[in-house]
Amino acid sequence: MNPVSSPLLTDLYQLTMLQAYVQHGMEEPATFEFFVRKLPPTRNFLLAAGLEQVLSFLEDLRFTAEELAWLSGCGMFRPGLVDYLEKLRFTGDVHAMLEGTIFFRDEPIVRVTAPLPQAQLIETRLINLLHFQTLIASKAARSVLVAPNKLLVDFGLRRTHGAEAGLLAARASYLAGFTGTSTVQAAPAFGIPIHGTMAHSFIQAHEDETAAFERFACASPDNVVLLIDTYDTEAGAEKVVSLAPRLRQKGIPIKGVRLDSGDLGEHARKVRRILDEGGLTDAEIFASGNLDESVVRQLVAEQAPIDGFGIGTRMNTSADAPYLDCAYKLQEYDGKPRRKRSEGKATWPGRKQVYRRYDAEGRMCSDVLTLEDDPQEGEPLILPVMRGGRRLQASIPLAAVRERARNQLARLPPALRGLEKGPDYPVEVSAALRDLAKAVDEHQL
Amino acid sequence: MNPVSSPLLTDLYQLTMLQAYVQHGMEEPATFEFFVRKLPPTRNFLLAAGLEQVLSFLEDLRFTAEELAWLSGCGMFRPGLVDYLEKLRFTGDVHAMLEGTIFFRDEPIVRVTAPLPQAQLIETRLINLLHFQTLIASKAARSVLVAPNKLLVDFGLRRTHGAEAGLLAARASYLAGFTGTSTVQAAPAFGIPIHGTMAHSFIQAHEDETAAFERFACASPDNVVLLIDTYDTEAGAEKVVSLAPRLRQKGIPIKGVRLDSGDLGEHARKVRRILDEGGLTDAEIFASGNLDESVVRQLVAEQAPIDGFGIGTRMNTSADAPYLDCAYKLQEYDGKPRRKRSEGKATWPGRKQVYRRYDAEGRMCSDVLTLEDDPQEGEPLILPVMRGGRRLQASIPLAAVRERARNQLARLPPALRGLEKGPDYPVEVSAALRDLAKAVDEHQL
Repeated sequence: MNPVSSPLLTDLYQLTMLQAYVQHGMEEPATFEFFVRKLPPTRNFLLAAGLEQVLSFLEDLRFTAEELAWLSGCGMFRPGLVDYLEKLRFTGDVHAMLEGTIFFRDEPIVRVTAPLPQAQLIETRLINLLHFQTLIASKAARSVLVAPNKLLVDFGLRRTHGAEAGLLAARASYLAGFTGTSTVQAAPAFGIPIHGTMAHSFIQAHEDETAAFERFACASPDNVVLLIDTYDTEAGAEKVVSLAPRLRQKGIPIKGVRLDSGDLGEHARKVRRILDEGGLTDAEIFASGNLDESVVRQLVAEQAPIDGFGIGTRMNTSADAPYLDCAYKLQEYDGKPRRKRSEGKATWPGRKQVYRRYDAEGRMCSDVLTLEDDPQEGEPLILPVMRGGRRLQASIPLAAVRERARNQLARLPPALRGLEKGPDYPVEVSAALRDLAKAVDEHQL
Repeated sequence: MNPVSSPLLTDLYQLTMLQAYVQHGMEEPATFEFFVRKLPPTRNFLLAAGLEQVLSFLEDLRFTAEELAWLSGCGMFRPGLVDYLEKLRFTGDVHAMLEGTIFFRDEPIVRVTAPLPQAQLIETRLINLLHFQTLIASKAARSVLVAPNKLLVDFGLRRTHGAEAGLLAARASYLAGFTGTSTVQAAPAFGIPIHGTMAHSFIQAHEDETAAFERFACASPDNVVLLIDTYDTEAGAEKVVSLAPRLRQKGIPIKGVRLDSGDLGEHARKVRRILDEGGLTDAEIFASGNLDESVVRQLVAEQAPIDGFGIGTRMNTSADAPYLDCAYKLQEYDGKPRRKRSEGKATWPGRKQVYRRYDAEGRMCSDVLTLEDDPQEGEPLILPVMRGGRRLQASIPLAAVRERARNQLARLPPALRGLEKGPDYPVEVSAALRDLAKAVDEHQL
């Protein structure tokens, strides 16, 4: 059983509830919406990501013979349930904000309408997919905003939480505007450009640092980026300069150096001088090591001569906000709007739409959250993407998603572009939606 | 290509360096060690986990025809490299602390000795596997310490970072002492007990809360745990009491109720009274919703009548410390000790062992970090687990790993059992190791 695609990668209660729904014939259409209740204190906006993987998950949803046999033998379910699951496919509709769209609190980014057992069963994995990529894309966008003209490379696979997260973090950060990733698998899987230099172990495995540089250069003549901080950063830069003429004779250019420790701005200035004085004015300086958008902003502000940044752990774990307060909630069943009213967790009922308004310069200035059948001024952000279990269009190429994100970031209000918390973006709740919530409350009491 | 098992799930530089090693005949044995440089401010100890998955990864390591074809066509490598990778298998030795062992800063928990290209290639995934499970087991152990007599269930799959992390978080938390998980796949994959109740959507899909309770009970008569906070927690408890006689006639016992919002301690006291007065003294109260070890400790301290806790997002993302400052570093190549000296990131050279000493009550009181061939008083913690690419013993059953963790937690010094930062645990560096580091520095300068 493959954990990535198994429908058993779900919460037990999804199967228990499904059994009860089926037993009682509750298979009318249900509408669920995925949204974020509240932005983390260090986020001014979120960037939608993960829809592509959700649609694939829905298209491919089926229980294998092995999974059915396990369910049948585990003693927790009735035989009828296993028969039902054997035939189960996702036959519902999906509406969504396209990947790369900026969104705010309470705004649904995915809406699922399907027979209740199906719409319920998919909850856990749908949240798992949307939550993670949205989390990482939203974090990565902050580095893109503070360093728009730098090479930004995802370096985080090793400390990202598990294999799938590592691979999807490469996708989410690229989507948000990163230049590429060090994760090889991201190239065949998503066509993302891959980047890499060398590790300290390569230097350490040699008796002599210069010999290590030379061997690496000869083995990878097209991509000579040398790591110079294993023993002493500036001494490493001097060695690069003395090695350069010998490599030049072999026709091998030095593309750059990498710094990975100490005061990166200070080292970069010294190294730049050493490289320039040694005639290596074209060699780039690449920096890594515990970076995040705050450190990058500081280095950019002090005009450190750094051409690119390798950003890893803190981005790929979204270390300052490692999760989003998101939910996938029932908003309508069998044509009737529904609402949860638990303390601090109340939701807006019904099938919703978000309209976005722009100012004269084309910058987004306010959204309206309303019902699907209550047209408002502005651009509707939620579009149909799947009907009857089939996509309405082919997968959107990742390059196009990235372009959409770029456009969206360009249209952010200036007050929300910084790393510090700005004013809340105005999301108005329409009169129609408020009236519906009130009506549902009165009915449900 | 399956991201979980693909050797392409690695950093590009591993392949680039491997190409250089092979080209220059650098295939002598190399020893790398995995360790944590520094504990997060909110951790007094770490709990080793992930070795089982590392050993499987090493045993199964091979490039598929599809992966080789991609490498061959991507234009980044020489044809010779692809031939080399086709034949590559892991043939090295592994020494390790067993899963469920408590450890501290600078102490290696896994040591790999293998031909340099192999030992290098596996770095990224080895870190990825050890880092995540150790992170989660260490976080989960904190809940186990503050609530040793409560039912603790992992509820976090939906917001854990990706599929694999969700599944492995169930394993890591169970290993640390959790009772079970809501993740279904964890049962067939690891034999972990699975638990579940019902969601708000189940209640909301019905016109009437009592009708929803009754239907759920009839569909899952062996596990009737009813979620009572969808509209009003105490009103929900009253409905459970009025429903109980009707269910009793059908032979269905009410096992418990779940609270998921508001002041959980306050609600639990009121609900306990309602259930007791209604004759449901055996019905348990289960609580969930934004829990972590601090909230659980508070609820336990105020003697809230809560029998079990569902702990999710904050544990499965290790929200207060979402990553560890860990590394996998070259310590020896071709029989010669190595050392990285980068600022703030210097490492201890050579093949190391950790000896642990215990006080009269059997509590751990200090460790010595030394070289493998420098025996010390105490229990050696690093044991051989793989030789020539083959495990030295079958997988240790998860139940035994869990028992080891239980014993280890029982032997923690009292000062390290709390949630607040205690004194640093004493880890002494032996004279032999200090001397070696000095000798390496003098040689390498």
